[in-house]
Amino acid sequence: MKAEIIAVGTELLLGQVVNTNATFLSEELAALGIDVYYHSVVGDNPERLSELLVTADKRSELIVLCGGLGPTEDDLTKQVTAQHVGQELVRDPAGYAQLEAFFKTRKGIMTENNLRQTLVFKDGIPLPNNNGLAVGIFYQDETHTYLLLPGPPSELKTMVLEQVNPLLKRAFPQKEQLISRVLRYYGIGESALAAELADLINEQTNPTIAPYAKPNEVTLRLTVKTSDPKQGIKQLDQLESVIQNRVGRFFYGYGEQNALVNVVVDLLKQKGKTVTAAESLTAGLFQSTLGTVPGVSEVFPGGFVTYSAAMKSKLLDIDPVLLTQHGTVSRACAEAMAVQARRAAGTDYAVSFTGVAGPEPLEGQPKGTVWIALASESGVTSDVYTFSRDRAYIRHSAVMAGLDLIRKELLR
Amino acid sequence: MKAEIIAVGTELLLGQVVNTNATFLSEELAALGIDVYYHSVVGDNPERLSELLVTADKRSELIVLCGGLGPTEDDLTKQVTAQHVGQELVRDPAGYAQLEAFFKTRKGIMTENNLRQTLVFKDGIPLPNNNGLAVGIFYQDETHTYLLLPGPPSELKTMVLEQVNPLLKRAFPQKEQLISRVLRYYGIGESALAAELADLINEQTNPTIAPYAKPNEVTLRLTVKTSDPKQGIKQLDQLESVIQNRVGRFFYGYGEQNALVNVVVDLLKQKGKTVTAAESLTAGLFQSTLGTVPGVSEVFPGGFVTYSAAMKSKLLDIDPVLLTQHGTVSRACAEAMAVQARRAAGTDYAVSFTGVAGPEPLEGQPKGTVWIALASESGVTSDVYTFSRDRAYIRHSAVMAGLDLIRKELLR
Repeated sequence: MKAEIIAVGTELLLGQVVNTNATFLSEELAALGIDVYYHSVVGDNPERLSELLVTADKRSELIVLCGGLGPTEDDLTKQVTAQHVGQELVRDPAGYAQLEAFFKTRKGIMTENNLRQTLVFKDGIPLPNNNGLAVGIFYQDETHTYLLLPGPPSELKTMVLEQVNPLLKRAFPQKEQLISRVLRYYGIGESALAAELADLINEQTNPTIAPYAKPNEVTLRLTVKTSDPKQGIKQLDQLESVIQNRVGRFFYGYGEQNALVNVVVDLLKQKGKTVTAAESLTAGLFQSTLGTVPGVSEVFPGGFVTYSAAMKSKLLDIDPVLLTQHGTVSRACAEAMAVQARRAAGTDYAVSFTGVAGPEPLEGQPKGTVWIALASESGVTSDVYTFSRDRAYIRHSAVMAGLDLIRKELLR
Repeated sequence: MKAEIIAVGTELLLGQVVNTNATFLSEELAALGIDVYYHSVVGDNPERLSELLVTADKRSELIVLCGGLGPTEDDLTKQVTAQHVGQELVRDPAGYAQLEAFFKTRKGIMTENNLRQTLVFKDGIPLPNNNGLAVGIFYQDETHTYLLLPGPPSELKTMVLEQVNPLLKRAFPQKEQLISRVLRYYGIGESALAAELADLINEQTNPTIAPYAKPNEVTLRLTVKTSDPKQGIKQLDQLESVIQNRVGRFFYGYGEQNALVNVVVDLLKQKGKTVTAAESLTAGLFQSTLGTVPGVSEVFPGGFVTYSAAMKSKLLDIDPVLLTQHGTVSRACAEAMAVQARRAAGTDYAVSFTGVAGPEPLEGQPKGTVWIALASESGVTSDVYTFSRDRAYIRHSAVMAGLDLIRKELLR
């Protein structure tokens, strides 16, 4: 099964947007055992897209197009592909109903061009869009399968996970299946992890080991190709146990979507504990990260953003003398913030963050210096960290370190 | 001048790596006035790469290859391209000296395969690699220009900025240059904006108009191709004034990187005003967004995350009776949060957010219902919004609406 991915959009060719859709689709297709041999990007140009479809037909059986399903005149992926395969474009009733409902709640005027988004192939399968208005298309003729997907990544991802993957599984049942397991690590870099596992990575055939660096964490994807799922899972178990013997101390959880914050919130729920925070340089990013998890209210009532020194005193009742004596980027300040936040919020734990997000130094301390404290029933602990890179990365690094502190405390 | 970019690497086709090189190269080539018509990705496979070069020759004059210059057996971009253009591969003496020096300081053993990295075309221009060991190649024959660049982004970027750009400028002096201007809009969807400008977009030739949807906002990129920069800027001014006459009420700023929060922080600084926030469903995301801007401490001292009803009473001294009477997702609650946050923080403005992030309804109100209030010296105003999509999008939508409220208040 040979596949290729065609992304349509002049903004990609101008370098305004990164083609993350191709990456995501490639991962998903690989998991289904479908081999992707080409990616292409072409602009919003009917002739060039049309030519590319002719080329793609010659070399691939599955052709996945993304982008160009929107309402504007330059969105023409459906029109060009319909002509290429000789299909008539018709209105999808469900998509049209969704469009009408959308404009009713928004009290906006539904302009004519919006109808383009509801067009589908007469003999294709319409793919409803749960995060947008452009309906996708799954179409097969005797020789080829075409998939037309929306360009915005949030729309495309949901459509692929919820609708496309089951359709592809049914259309192209593989005798051998791929079984993957994602291991997540915090506190070790990608190259250090790869060095620890160098022999395993070099010798890998089946299962395979793919390390991948994300901001402030690394995942390892173990994938086995097998016709016997039970046997495959046993192989993964064996490989994982060898790996965890070497780097298990940095392991925090399984799964592509299972971020550190999800693990922390689950643990808090399991143990029936609550947490608050007092944030200076992170300015709410830690609490906002907690807020990404549905149902977090059970373990997180709220907290404090104390950016200025005055607010540290005002909201947390910290003695201004302490702040002038030690500075706000100090162990004393971090510990006072955590202790006082815990008291004020009445939670089991409180984390505090104070430091230098940059780009400029603060109180004579260099960019990246961050104090993090954790207060609990049994007292308060704190440590200083030196994070690198830019403002956004430093703030994110601090949040991840704070989450890991709570996780370790809950596992003690 | 037609160009295309070919990235070589199986890891790209497996979705393990995002093709950021194509994005970077596209931006650089656009700035040189070179039109990129295609991106392609192909695996570490000599036949498929060779076929792609034949296709590329037919449609492009400049062919930029990246990746596959490394030391391993599957790095074969140089070998395949050399054969394609009929060039002999020879050792680059400077590259070889660098390789020797590298292994001397590392005290490592220089294995034979490392020599592959120093191969160049007999009649090409070698491009030294200041961040790695693989030497790049610039080669021209009568009909085509080929560029072979290393895959690691840090190596590629430096090579492009320091060596490739000057070479391309000399090889393809452009009489005309591209001048771009990005206009940013909030509060109007991409399709509505496109509808308002449909005639302009349909008739566009030079300058061009490219709308692009980002989460909760739309940008318009106006680009003029001109040999007379002064005249070009005048053309952009004229086009912009026609556009702003129609949709200027949604316009908030210029520039690719100039997010709504930057505009708000700049305005606060200009007017010497300060702001705080009380956040329920957004749980710190509004304040954390303010925190992305360096120097925001001047206008933002900190604020409150009041996720639970108890914290709304505890931190903001809101009467629990009000909360039970009206519910927390209510005008009364939003207005009390804003008024009390402003009082407690002693700022000029306070914004509050209370609503239903989902996925479940809350207090009988559906997901996406959000009350936002703005308190100032002159009192408090509030409104209810109905945001769509998922939890993350609803929270982001609320933050953007809150930022826009302050912006409008500051511009009154």
